[in-house]
Amino acid sequence: MMATEMKGIAASEGYAIGRAVILREETIPQGVTYVEAGEEQAELSRFDAAVAAASGELQELFEKMKADGRENEAEIFEAHLMLLEDEELIGAAQERIRSQRYKAEAAMNESGEEVAVMLAALDDEYLRERAADVRDVSRRVIRKLGNGSESEAVQTSAAGSTEKSILFAVDLTPSDTAQLDPSVIGGFVTAAGGRTSHSAIIARSVGIPAIVGVGDAALQIEDGQLVIVDGTAGIVLVEPEAEELARYQSLQQHAVNQRAELDQFRGKPSVSADGHQVELVANIGSVQDARQAQERGAEGVGLFRTEFLYMGRPDLPTEDEQFTAYKEAAEAFGQDAPIVIRTMDIGGDKELPSLQLEKEDNPFLGYRAIRICLDRPDLFKTQLRAVLRASAFGNLKIMFPMIATLGEWRAAKALLEQAKEELKNENIAFNEQIEAGIMIEIPAAAQMADRFAREVDFFSIGTNDLVQYTMAADRMNPKLGYLSDPLHPPVLRLIHQVIRAAHQENKWVGMCGEMAGTPIALPILLGMGLDEFSMSASAVLPARAFLSRLDRSKLAALAEAVLDMDDAEAVRTYVELQVPELKA
Amino acid sequence: MMATEMKGIAASEGYAIGRAVILREETIPQGVTYVEAGEEQAELSRFDAAVAAASGELQELFEKMKADGRENEAEIFEAHLMLLEDEELIGAAQERIRSQRYKAEAAMNESGEEVAVMLAALDDEYLRERAADVRDVSRRVIRKLGNGSESEAVQTSAAGSTEKSILFAVDLTPSDTAQLDPSVIGGFVTAAGGRTSHSAIIARSVGIPAIVGVGDAALQIEDGQLVIVDGTAGIVLVEPEAEELARYQSLQQHAVNQRAELDQFRGKPSVSADGHQVELVANIGSVQDARQAQERGAEGVGLFRTEFLYMGRPDLPTEDEQFTAYKEAAEAFGQDAPIVIRTMDIGGDKELPSLQLEKEDNPFLGYRAIRICLDRPDLFKTQLRAVLRASAFGNLKIMFPMIATLGEWRAAKALLEQAKEELKNENIAFNEQIEAGIMIEIPAAAQMADRFAREVDFFSIGTNDLVQYTMAADRMNPKLGYLSDPLHPPVLRLIHQVIRAAHQENKWVGMCGEMAGTPIALPILLGMGLDEFSMSASAVLPARAFLSRLDRSKLAALAEAVLDMDDAEAVRTYVELQVPELKA
Repeated sequence: MMATEMKGIAASEGYAIGRAVILREETIPQGVTYVEAGEEQAELSRFDAAVAAASGELQELFEKMKADGRENEAEIFEAHLMLLEDEELIGAAQERIRSQRYKAEAAMNESGEEVAVMLAALDDEYLRERAADVRDVSRRVIRKLGNGSESEAVQTSAAGSTEKSILFAVDLTPSDTAQLDPSVIGGFVTAAGGRTSHSAIIARSVGIPAIVGVGDAALQIEDGQLVIVDGTAGIVLVEPEAEELARYQSLQQHAVNQRAELDQFRGKPSVSADGHQVELVANIGSVQDARQAQERGAEGVGLFRTEFLYMGRPDLPTEDEQFTAYKEAAEAFGQDAPIVIRTMDIGGDKELPSLQLEKEDNPFLGYRAIRICLDRPDLFKTQLRAVLRASAFGNLKIMFPMIATLGEWRAAKALLEQAKEELKNENIAFNEQIEAGIMIEIPAAAQMADRFAREVDFFSIGTNDLVQYTMAADRMNPKLGYLSDPLHPPVLRLIHQVIRAAHQENKWVGMCGEMAGTPIALPILLGMGLDEFSMSASAVLPARAFLSRLDRSKLAALAEAVLDMDDAEAVRTYVELQVPELKA
Repeated sequence: MMATEMKGIAASEGYAIGRAVILREETIPQGVTYVEAGEEQAELSRFDAAVAAASGELQELFEKMKADGRENEAEIFEAHLMLLEDEELIGAAQERIRSQRYKAEAAMNESGEEVAVMLAALDDEYLRERAADVRDVSRRVIRKLGNGSESEAVQTSAAGSTEKSILFAVDLTPSDTAQLDPSVIGGFVTAAGGRTSHSAIIARSVGIPAIVGVGDAALQIEDGQLVIVDGTAGIVLVEPEAEELARYQSLQQHAVNQRAELDQFRGKPSVSADGHQVELVANIGSVQDARQAQERGAEGVGLFRTEFLYMGRPDLPTEDEQFTAYKEAAEAFGQDAPIVIRTMDIGGDKELPSLQLEKEDNPFLGYRAIRICLDRPDLFKTQLRAVLRASAFGNLKIMFPMIATLGEWRAAKALLEQAKEELKNENIAFNEQIEAGIMIEIPAAAQMADRFAREVDFFSIGTNDLVQYTMAADRMNPKLGYLSDPLHPPVLRLIHQVIRAAHQENKWVGMCGEMAGTPIALPILLGMGLDEFSMSASAVLPARAFLSRLDRSKLAALAEAVLDMDDAEAVRTYVELQVPELKA
């Protein structure tokens, strides 16, 4: 009856082998029940007491996680605490009791569902996933109303077994996931959920393999069955054959070895075999990303995509909100680590309800990023002030996206100077020497790199857009895949030219496109003299390990040779041949 | 009562001053009338006789125009002759007589209207304008049915006056316009019509100022009123003040002098003051354009936009149709004139019903031109064979658009070689030495020009797209106008690099973007060594005159200097200062 294989969304990579444990959902009494007339006030008091008890419990969990250094988990409980003060959730429940004589449990359940359903209907994936948090909080309050204690499902599930457990559930509440003990729980599989659900985020942070969105199949498992969770491929194997089991045991061992090898590179400088040092930093979109990147060995941040602060909300983020985000990102790394804040790149494929941009025929060639910011100095200065204020708390740098002309750069710089002047007049601290640079992602800017290099403090090459414009091919267009390759020699020539121009003026050059984290590109970029490589956090340690095996002195010739090749394919073949370390 | 000024579409430039003559529309009897039962056959004979008479008249007009060397006009009457053989028009009228007992006049009128209304509803402007031709032919047949002779309106209108006449009409039939005598008619103004109506085309060809699409105001004029037609601005002035009259007389004189000056450059080589020769050729979209361009002094064609052969029709053009178009374009210029045929550039902003391309998010960065052709060798080879066959009749060259990689060029070239092989096997004549080149309009191709130059016979720089991709700015986006300027130094650097790379390999380089016909750009491009300038036909003589005043030896330094300037504005100011001939 049982399928031997299930497929889902690979939410946290790695391999786990263990015994299935099914986490049955608590049954919440459905339907509305009422109290007698006149009892409303008493019921309200009972409800408020339950909310207070839930709040105390969350506070405790928050402090415990914080004490354990589990910032991401602590943040979830902090968010839950805030939900307990939410008018739409708690206020609405109180109103139901007060004016409709709902029983407290029913009031909490209905208010929670109302908010959760509203969130679940949103376009934004991140906000959609927040429905799980609201339900989680509602249930915690309902448990308190029943004098119930914390669900012990997760803790007890693995009792009496020496093998690790693989949890199966409809969905894991964020609370459940935050309290998962990796020494007992090997991995989990859920019927619902997506890659940005809190359970998926925490699984990645703790390093537990996880597969979500498997559907009903996840619930047809039986307790105690032997299960393999392949969190890399998004596959669950139930009662595997001996051969498969052996294969996964070996994969698991290999992963353990690899992780052990990579772990040696955590906290180390990024140095080639012959002693050439570069910087390996991360691309992030949030404070949470910053913390994860730091844990995963990044030396700092090469690209903070600040537009995520602007997205999925009806209004614009305030100066204070932004300041806090930039400051906390810096604090995740400490005083000296470089944190490059890119001013917002809205437009193109990223829409923003609060700006009401017109629909365009060719959004990638459209009104976006710095082009909007220079038209909207009000909006832009708010961000500049926030970055400057945060610069008092770390080694922040500021970077302008989509610069095509010297005039745009100078106008952006002038607004930065204005913002500095304002802060000075207001006696607000900031780093007066803050570095200001530009993205090189438009061919025009690459072509004029020699001129820009005299004026900016640094470049960061954005290869995703640079490839797209240089090849005149929308990278999202499936018919043009063969053109969307950063190894095409015209792109390599531009990169080479940009690095040379920067070094001529003693400026540093980074790269924050996908190319920077690609093993095949690393030897070329190293040979060209790239100073800073910014990539997804998970690529940092592998890149540092790979770098340690490369002899940089041999790569300058390789970097020259690829400039004259026919196409990306020829470059790929050549580099694979010349750099045997790629296969290790 | 009369407005002193009317505005319309500037259909043919220049200035005319004269007395208004109103051309009243012939009244066609409306409503259907019938013949008695049994008379159908006789009525059919009467109809066929009228068609034959109309046909004879058209044949006569066709031959007269041809004898006068007025090819464009001859072509209109040839098209009308073909309409008289059209099943939907003439066949449908016959059917109405035969089976519905329509009187011949009513049958012709209804069939004509039916076809005209259908055409007028089409999206394609060119086809829409063909409604006027159908109505024109219908009326000619109806006149013949009434034993009427050719409308004498145009011929008689100016009788007894020494001043030129300005014709006012709802619309001019193509027949009327073709017979306009420029020694009598100074200009015309119509209530209806567009820039591609036959009357507008002929006005431009004959050199009569004309304004179309003025609306009802055009009909409120009175016979004999003094009128100025400003065909450059699209303005009609009625009973002008003395001052205005004087101003326009001077403008008219100036235009006459200028035309006389430019006329000296017709048929002359294009040479700078110090004897450096280049080629000034035209961008065309049809055989008619080719003839006009030849008349206007172009030395050949630098860009035949063949996609117009594919547009505004439900099916694809056959090999024979294309062959005829390419051959006739070549014949318009004679044996030696270079005719560069660009293979079709469909996609982007040009849709094609016969290909059913998917809607794209960023069509300018999308699936278009050579990218489609290499996927559809059937369609592409038909065009290649047509070009090759036409190459036996003139100095044709073939050019591939939107080339980004060497691989694409080589694949296109291989298909060309295949087509040659086929023709050889079929014993069909073609020029085996036909030159094959590429458009340089994608930054990648410009960047790799040194590599391409070893393999192609020539380059033609397409600045419209090159600017768009280099600056990452949709040229149709009104918010990004400041970026869509070919004088931005990064664009100039690419152009410079392309010309140098081509000359290194002894290949010639042309330019067929709008920049090539821009006076401010000419000294720069000349200084860089551009060999061929392809522009709209009307820009050729002015460019040749300007060129004759430039000292090329002084421009190399200018061409170098602009490469290091801040932006387009700085370049513009500098060139205006350095090249005083620009003001002459």
